[in-house]
Amino acid sequence: MKRTSRDIRTANRYEVLRQIIAASPTSRQELAAATGLSLATVATLVGELLGLGMITEVGFEDSAGGRPRGLVAVNPSGGALIGVDIAETYVHVELFDLALNAVARAEEDMRPGESRPEQVVGHVAAAVGAVIAQAGIEEARVLGVGVSVPGQVDRDNGVAEYAPNFDWRDVPLLDLLAEHLAHPLYLDNPLRACAVAELWFGAARGRGDAVVVNLGTGVGAGLVLGGGLHRGVSNSAGEWGHTTLVLDGRLCHCGNRGCVETYVGAPGIMRRLRELSPGSALLHPGDQTATVGALARAVAAHDPVAVEVVRDTARYLAAGIADLINLLNPEVIVLSSWVAATLGEPLLAEVREAVARHALRRPLAATEIVLSPIAGDPVSLGAATFALEGALGSPRRGAGSARRPVPAGSRGAAPS
Amino acid sequence: MKRTSRDIRTANRYEVLRQIIAASPTSRQELAAATGLSLATVATLVGELLGLGMITEVGFEDSAGGRPRGLVAVNPSGGALIGVDIAETYVHVELFDLALNAVARAEEDMRPGESRPEQVVGHVAAAVGAVIAQAGIEEARVLGVGVSVPGQVDRDNGVAEYAPNFDWRDVPLLDLLAEHLAHPLYLDNPLRACAVAELWFGAARGRGDAVVVNLGTGVGAGLVLGGGLHRGVSNSAGEWGHTTLVLDGRLCHCGNRGCVETYVGAPGIMRRLRELSPGSALLHPGDQTATVGALARAVAAHDPVAVEVVRDTARYLAAGIADLINLLNPEVIVLSSWVAATLGEPLLAEVREAVARHALRRPLAATEIVLSPIAGDPVSLGAATFALEGALGSPRRGAGSARRPVPAGSRGAAPS
Repeated sequence: MKRTSRDIRTANRYEVLRQIIAASPTSRQELAAATGLSLATVATLVGELLGLGMITEVGFEDSAGGRPRGLVAVNPSGGALIGVDIAETYVHVELFDLALNAVARAEEDMRPGESRPEQVVGHVAAAVGAVIAQAGIEEARVLGVGVSVPGQVDRDNGVAEYAPNFDWRDVPLLDLLAEHLAHPLYLDNPLRACAVAELWFGAARGRGDAVVVNLGTGVGAGLVLGGGLHRGVSNSAGEWGHTTLVLDGRLCHCGNRGCVETYVGAPGIMRRLRELSPGSALLHPGDQTATVGALARAVAAHDPVAVEVVRDTARYLAAGIADLINLLNPEVIVLSSWVAATLGEPLLAEVREAVARHALRRPLAATEIVLSPIAGDPVSLGAATFALEGALGSPRRGAGSARRPVPAGSRGAAPS
Repeated sequence: MKRTSRDIRTANRYEVLRQIIAASPTSRQELAAATGLSLATVATLVGELLGLGMITEVGFEDSAGGRPRGLVAVNPSGGALIGVDIAETYVHVELFDLALNAVARAEEDMRPGESRPEQVVGHVAAAVGAVIAQAGIEEARVLGVGVSVPGQVDRDNGVAEYAPNFDWRDVPLLDLLAEHLAHPLYLDNPLRACAVAELWFGAARGRGDAVVVNLGTGVGAGLVLGGGLHRGVSNSAGEWGHTTLVLDGRLCHCGNRGCVETYVGAPGIMRRLRELSPGSALLHPGDQTATVGALARAVAAHDPVAVEVVRDTARYLAAGIADLINLLNPEVIVLSSWVAATLGEPLLAEVREAVARHALRRPLAATEIVLSPIAGDPVSLGAATFALEGALGSPRRGAGSARRPVPAGSRGAAPS
């Protein structure tokens, strides 16, 4: 609801750590200048971060005759964070140091029909065990595990409320995981994971208003408004994939017709390829990743069918992005997730051109459209960032969002 | 961009005055409980408002044996505020006391072809003079004049950047008005005027996230996010009327096709009536107000054509509102402005039913859809509220948003 002074304190703490991660080593004076906070506030927050072991003092800076200024830097070995990306066809897990460098990774494939909750939980537990072993660190050094699962999520209670691609409803995912993992657990979805990754480490850093358009099997828009993640009243903001682009158009699995996702999600792209060229060698039935990869290579080779599929996809995508620009007037639109990364610059160029035909002049002039600069998997990075935010204390909303394992026999009420 | 501590102070000052206006007389203790601010903060803010003459001490409350608590109330005669609603066919001006009760009103009709900037400015100046005369107050008691003009607005520089219905581009409206009016002037558009009216006095009061859907000749959505107005990076957020509902659909004056506005704006409603019943007696060619009024009366009399026009309009409107719900996950959607007020409950009932067919279950369950509870013209009320916010000091963004008259010969740079 309203921002309380505690929310402000937490946001300022994020802001200072974000800046230290971006530019270590740095002084309190530089941090004050970069964040707009007072030197006294920065000094307090730096003291708290030192106390948490997340940063360290690393010497002094020459200040041209004045009193030497103390320098601080992020303490990479101050703890580890794990990010879990549960996707339709795989579970991808990465372990990060406190500077959010990936130290270890593991991936488990999931075949169609292998997506019962206990099967997915088994894959997650195995992959988390693997990255901890690979990194060779003690279990206790892991400050938290952030988990991203597609669909609608009740993060306060750790429940996957609706994941259409798995046919899940109200799966108590963190309770199930807590039977295997002895770490604080945080649940959210890929939209918000990608948005928070861009906010901390990518194209939304330092921006007031940004939209992170997530292009994968599912499609959505993580909203960064007023410098923070906009969650909405029940943590389901960002379902841009289920906004109507073509009234009475293609049927969507959500029950509506003509949703953005049915045109620009990976299955929608495959469908368009099939319509244009039913026997295309680019088409790998049942394999979205292979098909989108083949499309990208064919575009690079100027294959006319592939060029047309990307142009058509960009046309739908651009109309939906123009809607975001006209409605929200953001500084930047970031194209993220695997479809955007695979189709890359050719998709971006078509989108920019088509957005200019749809959007209003004034907000269009104020908006950049870019590809995500994040090299690895933004979802696991963002999921780990949720664990980092949790370790920094006072989550924005819902004090119960970190789950700790409970002794057998005492299950039920969520510890907070 | 980021919220500074000055922004927070201003927001808290708004919050306290909002609460005093809502429930005078009240004590500092009640204000602290209602706003979530500390008693010390409330006491400081109350002191500032007393200093500005906007509130007064009105005695003491019995506190069951404890120290009697001082009561404060809004001081209606502490000043006057004027709100100007420049619409396509009229200029409506109201003068309010500090409790935002309308004390005087004046209206000037504008015929098609009478919308050159100097003509409109003449109407505004005449109507402002009329309300001051009617109210019988001294000019100096007017704390400010808020002006709403349709389209895209550069509020910092007081320029109407693009008003398609007047065919205006880059009209320096506040500079022109300053030649006639000796008061601080504030410019914005009807979307944001309606949103701020709901935030201070209507259905968005006390809500974190609300969307005020403005249904008139033009159509838009004022966004209240995180308890404040979301303006976007260049003050053009809210152009929901120009989001695509029907790809390649009806041509819109913005150059795009299939915009929400072309279906649910008053001209779109008239078009649908003409399609269904070309010779309908309900149709008043060239007169939107008369036609929508006739439709409302015909719906009340169960006229089948009128019922069908409202149902069709609700169907488009609901698809667009479901998009807002899925994307933003607000607590409340408020239907505002003259088309919503005229079509009223029958429109609301159809919209609620149709939204349930389009929106996702989780955000839908968290959202109420209501008609604006504001009795008068929300646009002039909202415009006056911008003047109130200006008089409270430190506008959110853009310190130059209040324009004061400048001596002849020194025009040019904006005083701030």
